[in-house]
Amino acid sequence: MATRCSSFEFKVTHTDGGARAGLMRTRRGVVPTPAFMPVGTAATVKAVTPEQLKALGARIILGNTYHLHLRPGEEIIARLGGLHAFMGWDGPILTDSGGFQVFSLSPLVRVTSDGVMFASHLDGSRRMLTPEKAIEIQEALGSDIMMCLDECVAYPSPLPKVEQACDRTVRWAARSLEAKKTDAALFGIVQGGMDDGLRKRCASALAGLPFDGLAIGGLSVGEGHDVMMAVLGRTTAHLPQDKPRYLMGVGTPVDIVEAVGMGVDLFDCVLPTRNARNGTLFTSAGRLSLKQARFREDPGPPDASCSCYTCTHFSRAYLRHLHVSGEILGSVLNTIHNLHFYLELMSGIRHSIEERRFEDLKTKIKEMFDD
Amino acid sequence: MATRCSSFEFKVTHTDGGARAGLMRTRRGVVPTPAFMPVGTAATVKAVTPEQLKALGARIILGNTYHLHLRPGEEIIARLGGLHAFMGWDGPILTDSGGFQVFSLSPLVRVTSDGVMFASHLDGSRRMLTPEKAIEIQEALGSDIMMCLDECVAYPSPLPKVEQACDRTVRWAARSLEAKKTDAALFGIVQGGMDDGLRKRCASALAGLPFDGLAIGGLSVGEGHDVMMAVLGRTTAHLPQDKPRYLMGVGTPVDIVEAVGMGVDLFDCVLPTRNARNGTLFTSAGRLSLKQARFREDPGPPDASCSCYTCTHFSRAYLRHLHVSGEILGSVLNTIHNLHFYLELMSGIRHSIEERRFEDLKTKIKEMFDD
Repeated sequence: MATRCSSFEFKVTHTDGGARAGLMRTRRGVVPTPAFMPVGTAATVKAVTPEQLKALGARIILGNTYHLHLRPGEEIIARLGGLHAFMGWDGPILTDSGGFQVFSLSPLVRVTSDGVMFASHLDGSRRMLTPEKAIEIQEALGSDIMMCLDECVAYPSPLPKVEQACDRTVRWAARSLEAKKTDAALFGIVQGGMDDGLRKRCASALAGLPFDGLAIGGLSVGEGHDVMMAVLGRTTAHLPQDKPRYLMGVGTPVDIVEAVGMGVDLFDCVLPTRNARNGTLFTSAGRLSLKQARFREDPGPPDASCSCYTCTHFSRAYLRHLHVSGEILGSVLNTIHNLHFYLELMSGIRHSIEERRFEDLKTKIKEMFDD
Repeated sequence: MATRCSSFEFKVTHTDGGARAGLMRTRRGVVPTPAFMPVGTAATVKAVTPEQLKALGARIILGNTYHLHLRPGEEIIARLGGLHAFMGWDGPILTDSGGFQVFSLSPLVRVTSDGVMFASHLDGSRRMLTPEKAIEIQEALGSDIMMCLDECVAYPSPLPKVEQACDRTVRWAARSLEAKKTDAALFGIVQGGMDDGLRKRCASALAGLPFDGLAIGGLSVGEGHDVMMAVLGRTTAHLPQDKPRYLMGVGTPVDIVEAVGMGVDLFDCVLPTRNARNGTLFTSAGRLSLKQARFREDPGPPDASCSCYTCTHFSRAYLRHLHVSGEILGSVLNTIHNLHFYLELMSGIRHSIEERRFEDLKTKIKEMFDD
């Protein structure tokens, strides 16, 4: 195996039932886990400055390879010193492989054993993404944790199709390891749809390869919470204990706390940032939609128990006004609050695992969001 | 005269030729003049938090009575503690009377001696704005400096129409003084189009009334820079020396520095904030449009001599990328830079007057923006 060594270390420091707390050491700093990565699609976590992001306690963010490859292009970013310098974020960055966006955004997709041919959703130009190309782009970006290109099938898909994609994902994973030239970390991605056998086969195959961590892909695609959790549980069972597990694109606070209970260490999701721009806030009393007329004259903060800049300075009535008026500041203040909520949630989860009261916290979170 | 006393004081501390530096004491703090007021149309200076605004050195901002009256409405703002509490800005706020927006935004306008009937541009509802109502709204908002309702005519308009509007503006000004019930300051507005005789007549009439300051309205409406400056010069000549002069809705850095040379103390304009959202930056080398392809890989800051958060953390290439991608953060970072530029410009102007080198600075600013 020609795989280049990674500057990466992961250590589980505490467990509580299935939940784990740990430390993930990347080449740009340590990340306490379980961790949530705010999504920085186009070299920006939408609506907040890197300074605000840092003040919110974000320790690692996610960048989207597909978007950055198309605009401005990884060569430009590389010439400008890499993604960290480009966007002014000096903490760790995990990049996805671009695969998921190819399958969800491209108007045209053709998969071969070599890779996936697609069309840019911006200008229709034909592009080819291979496992090797995905690594090349991520290394050009300067990613600290890279992801292997995987084949994402629609849900539901016929089992033979899921199986073919699953096996291809494993072959691509091995090619990704071979392609890696830098000391960035590399995670494999377990696919296999909702089929236990395929999930086990994929997880076991990837567990045998020298990845720095393993991701669970292909969930939160419409299968519903219960199915997702069932599949997740049967997948993590086949993953090595000593490597971080990353549940891609998930999820709600309840999804996260349940997944942590099944031994997941890492999450990313657009929910807190996208919901913020749509006027929905996560609070200790559940979701709050600023669209509701009942907040028109509400002088209270979004969440009285929240210590974020938004909650300590502004009322629901003001945030509703900004949202209704389409003001940029509304997106900014809502994003600050929602990211604060998610990052505090993760911090609370970590402490609860250290203090062996994770189940109590899980119950509390589920009660908060029982809608 | 039943006029309620104002918590307001103005003192010219230095002069240099026609330029004046001074201190404007409002009930919410002192504002060194000449001053620029960032525009906070809908209870937000677009794209920045009050915290960022304060850090940028803004000492006073402007709120738009028309917009706030229509949404969310001054009663709601009053019940929530006034505009300052509502938007989280504890410094002075000057509010316009709503007149200018009625004449420029309403799809329907009918002026009588009583006031102006208009239709909301949001829902078409019929509304009436009178001098008394404009004061009532501004007092409900908790404005620190209120403006009289004036009649704004289109440019160009026939002289009899301009004269009628000018005389009506003077009558409305007297009614505004009578209507004032709080200790907020109140400024009259000089109209009179581009006609010297009418400008003199209006200025002299208002100079005889107990206003806290006087504004020059009806300029920057398409007459061009040279005509504006000529009319301005002939207007300020008839204004009292001991009251602040406010040139409404102006302008470019060159407009501002020339107007200061004619004795203007106060400005507001959407240029820095609106241009920011459109990707145009004000720099010490003139205007810079981020749309230009030549910035695609430019690693330099927008303005190498600028100390703002944007210039000290991000490249032209990154800001261009954000702008091209329609990212909110682009509007935020560009707004921070442009407001910093305007506020530093004013600070530079003040110091140059104190040190009697205003003419040199004026020449320099005009060279910067000689495009």
